[in-house]
Amino acid sequence: MSFKCEYCQIPGAYGNLIYDTDYWLIYLAPSQRYLGTCVVALKRQCSSLNELQSEEWSEFTEIVQNMEITLKKTFNPTLFNWSCFMNSAYRVSSPNPEVHWHFIPRYNKKVEFEGLIFEDPDFGYIPQPLEHKIPDEVMKKLMAEIKKNLR
Amino acid sequence: MSFKCEYCQIPGAYGNLIYDTDYWLIYLAPSQRYLGTCVVALKRQCSSLNELQSEEWSEFTEIVQNMEITLKKTFNPTLFNWSCFMNSAYRVSSPNPEVHWHFIPRYNKKVEFEGLIFEDPDFGYIPQPLEHKIPDEVMKKLMAEIKKNLR
Repeated sequence: MSFKCEYCQIPGAYGNLIYDTDYWLIYLAPSQRYLGTCVVALKRQCSSLNELQSEEWSEFTEIVQNMEITLKKTFNPTLFNWSCFMNSAYRVSSPNPEVHWHFIPRYNKKVEFEGLIFEDPDFGYIPQPLEHKIPDEVMKKLMAEIKKNLR
Repeated sequence: MSFKCEYCQIPGAYGNLIYDTDYWLIYLAPSQRYLGTCVVALKRQCSSLNELQSEEWSEFTEIVQNMEITLKKTFNPTLFNWSCFMNSAYRVSSPNPEVHWHFIPRYNKKVEFEGLIFEDPDFGYIPQPLEHKIPDEVMKKLMAEIKKNLR
């Protein structure tokens, strides 16, 4: 994982690992502009969705269900945005894209967590790849809260 | 289909139907800021991905493969962006979201089609929901070109 993804915001990694499955890694994204934002990354090197194997797709659909239900239970977002873009990988001359999904909960209300107020300044519109870091201590508690509600 | 999607740009429809499958409708999007942009909409009313049935997912994965290969053959884009957002449905007080995917080919070069030059002014970055209409005659030829290359 050698590039800096525009949503993920840090080079070399997608964030903190929440859990993994046979084919996918589920990370808590470093940027939390939208509370509970995660990245679902394929374990093997693969550069486009049309090369996914059926068992990888099948497991991905279980992750979609699992993550939506888990986040609903945790912060009750209004809806969820999913995207597979890989744009930033193409900013360099020898692109090395890696299939990964952005899972972005969206909120029509403020949410308080650990004394911080999270708003969704773009509700109703596309999510913006703007960095919003939160203190390490809150990230740890956010990881724990999501893990607690995982099925 | 009662709302105006921010990518699709027209109220009440997702564009011109290219083909359909048991569970999905594949449209050519009215806005062609990114040449070959399509919408893949679930036929039944369903408001979130976690409610998709396994046979609907399975068919969707075949469409991903089919559309990527078809567009590759037609205009040779550099990569493809996929997203399921449904944000604009939540701008009204009684949201009625409908599961639909945005399929957006992205280009690191200019493409000429029917005398028009298509550029990707946002290459390497998230696709912008900005309207770019093309003449009806060109839309018809674009439909025909994509259909010709469909498997």
